[in-house]
Amino acid sequence: MQQSTTDPAELKEGGGQGAADEQACPLAEALRQRAEAVSGPFPGSHKVYIPGSRADLQVAAREVVLSPSATPDGPRPNPPIQLYDTGGPYTDAQAEHDPINGIKATRAAWIAQRGQSAMTQMGYARAGTITPEMEYVALREGLEPDFVRAEIAAGRAVLPANPNHPETEPMAIGRHLKVKVNANIGNSPLSSGIPDELEKLIRAVRWGADTVMDLSTGEDISETRRYLLRNSPVPIGTVPIYQALEKAGSPENLTWELFRDTLIEQAEQGVDYFTIHAGVLREHVDLARARLTGIVSRGGSIIARWCSFHDRESFIYEHFDEICEILAKYDVTISLGDGLRPGSVADASDAAQLAELSTLGELTQRAWERNVQVIIEGPGHIPMDQIEQNMRIQERDCCEAPFYTLGPIVTDIAPGYDHITSAIGAAQIGWHGTAMLCYVTPKEHLGLPNADDVRTGIVTYKAAAHAADLARGHPTARMRDDALSRARYEFRWEDQFNLSLDPERARDYHDETLPKDSHKEAEFCSMCGPNFCAMAISQRL
Amino acid sequence: MQQSTTDPAELKEGGGQGAADEQACPLAEALRQRAEAVSGPFPGSHKVYIPGSRADLQVAAREVVLSPSATPDGPRPNPPIQLYDTGGPYTDAQAEHDPINGIKATRAAWIAQRGQSAMTQMGYARAGTITPEMEYVALREGLEPDFVRAEIAAGRAVLPANPNHPETEPMAIGRHLKVKVNANIGNSPLSSGIPDELEKLIRAVRWGADTVMDLSTGEDISETRRYLLRNSPVPIGTVPIYQALEKAGSPENLTWELFRDTLIEQAEQGVDYFTIHAGVLREHVDLARARLTGIVSRGGSIIARWCSFHDRESFIYEHFDEICEILAKYDVTISLGDGLRPGSVADASDAAQLAELSTLGELTQRAWERNVQVIIEGPGHIPMDQIEQNMRIQERDCCEAPFYTLGPIVTDIAPGYDHITSAIGAAQIGWHGTAMLCYVTPKEHLGLPNADDVRTGIVTYKAAAHAADLARGHPTARMRDDALSRARYEFRWEDQFNLSLDPERARDYHDETLPKDSHKEAEFCSMCGPNFCAMAISQRL
Repeated sequence: MQQSTTDPAELKEGGGQGAADEQACPLAEALRQRAEAVSGPFPGSHKVYIPGSRADLQVAAREVVLSPSATPDGPRPNPPIQLYDTGGPYTDAQAEHDPINGIKATRAAWIAQRGQSAMTQMGYARAGTITPEMEYVALREGLEPDFVRAEIAAGRAVLPANPNHPETEPMAIGRHLKVKVNANIGNSPLSSGIPDELEKLIRAVRWGADTVMDLSTGEDISETRRYLLRNSPVPIGTVPIYQALEKAGSPENLTWELFRDTLIEQAEQGVDYFTIHAGVLREHVDLARARLTGIVSRGGSIIARWCSFHDRESFIYEHFDEICEILAKYDVTISLGDGLRPGSVADASDAAQLAELSTLGELTQRAWERNVQVIIEGPGHIPMDQIEQNMRIQERDCCEAPFYTLGPIVTDIAPGYDHITSAIGAAQIGWHGTAMLCYVTPKEHLGLPNADDVRTGIVTYKAAAHAADLARGHPTARMRDDALSRARYEFRWEDQFNLSLDPERARDYHDETLPKDSHKEAEFCSMCGPNFCAMAISQRL
Repeated sequence: MQQSTTDPAELKEGGGQGAADEQACPLAEALRQRAEAVSGPFPGSHKVYIPGSRADLQVAAREVVLSPSATPDGPRPNPPIQLYDTGGPYTDAQAEHDPINGIKATRAAWIAQRGQSAMTQMGYARAGTITPEMEYVALREGLEPDFVRAEIAAGRAVLPANPNHPETEPMAIGRHLKVKVNANIGNSPLSSGIPDELEKLIRAVRWGADTVMDLSTGEDISETRRYLLRNSPVPIGTVPIYQALEKAGSPENLTWELFRDTLIEQAEQGVDYFTIHAGVLREHVDLARARLTGIVSRGGSIIARWCSFHDRESFIYEHFDEICEILAKYDVTISLGDGLRPGSVADASDAAQLAELSTLGELTQRAWERNVQVIIEGPGHIPMDQIEQNMRIQERDCCEAPFYTLGPIVTDIAPGYDHITSAIGAAQIGWHGTAMLCYVTPKEHLGLPNADDVRTGIVTYKAAAHAADLARGHPTARMRDDALSRARYEFRWEDQFNLSLDPERARDYHDETLPKDSHKEAEFCSMCGPNFCAMAISQRL
């Protein structure tokens, strides 16, 4: 068995042969070691499972144990805090890691019960049925199950859940739910192999990615994706035209048949959502010619090139109804790509961008007619004063289908810091109603992110998404802020670290100047020193 | 001469003895080496001086030389771009570094001409006089000199320029000027010496700090400040109560006389602006008792402690008119401190914060009566949905005196990433009218920043400030974005790096995967690889 064609699904079917294969398969051992190295619970935390209405519905959450407060009457205990947890088995101390066979299939029994004639989650929602997936989401978000169902029925939320990816712990994306974060991973022709991508996946969900997109364009695209799917507790998205282009060799050689077969292949594997640039029309290409930075979406540029070369309407647009049939069959959510998103603030909110958005609104209706779940992708590069307006136009044109934006980046002048320039825009557009934020790493515009870039990008975006939840007045969002701030004021340093988005980094930074254990109970830090700590003085008032 | 009492001013007066002292003074050599190590022009850039109306008025700017664009007709040259430059001699290849004698005194002749009976910049502005400082600012910002004068006369802008700090290259802070960034440096009782602080200063102005606050609370406060003043091309601010507390030993022992003498000592040295928490009144202390995180401003907590202990009104508030006389004499700008700023989103926009802000409005009027220049400090921790409202209340209560905010941080849950959570708030409040943003480093809440934290903090805030300029529609702000985006689209990698806020980091990140020189002309990067670059495909359309 060659390494490059190892199929985890086949191995899973092979049953007891797993152990025997290990010696023969250095990839299996590499993957296991990599998974081990980046797994484990967060400090001071353990996994808990919130029971649902049936025995096989147990919602994973992270419980943070807090130390007692010191009071004049002695220590006063602080109750533990439960946090939304995307880490799956990777943050569970009890879990064992077997990347060849993959992680637990949380949804397997529910999918089996529905059988061959299952509808999409939108189909069930419209029929008034609360699926176990919807109940899971409701418990996870602290909402009523029927509210989740109604949001999905209305198209205001999606629940990406391909039956061929039973490993997903159900989550939903919508303007009345917590703001979600997507992390892009994937190799490029210039770098990265399967173990690297598995590590990125595990790190991504550990730090809080709600979905992961595999944007691989390099070698072993299918194998890489298979490993990611079998080992991912979060929905996996792809941009199928990348693989279609790999097969075709050039944009001009793309055909509908080749694209269709790619969609089916990936849907069979279990991909939960597809980015498809169905709104890039032939007539839009001219609108982009006057731009400072042309077309900066890979998918968009491929379609534009195809339309120009063949002087024909996009084959994706022309076959959209057939695409919807495939999506409906596998309950793959469509993420309508913004192939004409602006790549610079100069091009923001221009005619090309808005013309495509209007087309996406039309396609949304057509997908909904077939119970296909829809999200709409958005910019890109947008100055702050145009952010709310972009959100309002999307709501209007696309009937409140969830908006999923890449940032937006609010100034072009900070390569190396574009996780930050884009988090500024992401927090604002999240506040105004965007449902999911696609993270940007410090390497944006410069190169392929490494594992640490993934961490920085995700945590940055978790902060932006949480800030948006706070600004929207989400009923439970402030609980974590208040618990952390109380710990800070009471100099419970360990609790402050453990409640933070990145406990390890918070502790490392504190350790840089005050490394001793005793400093973790000190009533000061090195910022102000013992005599100048405002909080210490304030407590003595 | 002992190291800890080396006075650069005395040495400067000593003239030719400098060289002889070098052997005897290891500090001098350490400082010189440190300055050399972190100085030099940015890549592809050189210093230019824009001539003003008199021979001794030459406005420093940075000119970035661009490479030609490749066109079908051959290379097309691109004109160089001039950028606002805060680096002083440290980004000038011609400058020599002599930290003992300090940098060039740009304003010396103008100050001498005005003589002993000089007014404040506000006094001149109200009298209709355009000072050389105002003209310098106008040329630097691309504005009419009389517009700058009028803004200062109205109190909407300040031009911090203590005559005892002639080394300042004039700059102004106001809602109709470019958004400025302040960097805090300074030692604490637990770490850092004078060479470290000098390095932080030089790095801060190199990366773009418009002013620097020396918040030292450790050893050698006076000496540290003297070195910083003699070597700073940007205004230096302090919080004089820190040094007063150091002298008094405890908040209760503070007296008006001790505080007054500290103000005079620092004004004599040349400090350009003082943070003074004059708005913390005895009656406000009770308003802060119900808070989650009490009083988190060091100055605020000291005053509150004094008022509580003595059961008296704040001596600072009671002696405010005498303080203004000192400020007017030295043209020290007052930055009215927000001693009751919220330290958590739970405490945002509460009664304590707003009561103090109202008092700051009253004090603004009293300072303006004496031609004292005023800026108002602001929060802190504020969720996004309250940011614009905070700006509007400040404008109303403080008659459009420039607002100078610390962030605000928009969620409490990301220690280690608070440069980012605060940049999200800073960009927004800057857009809504805040004139200067006080940077926050990744170490906020955790420890004292090191030199690299200073760099990260400043560049992050320069991006936020620039995003605010863009959103306000500043007439020249987008020039840099467009030049960089054009370079990006044309694969002029060197130009893209050189036009960015942190050319070295941008290049380092690119080098991580594509280190060769030839890659700096490649029509792709490692993000997408050669076959998937949207911009390359787009150009071929």
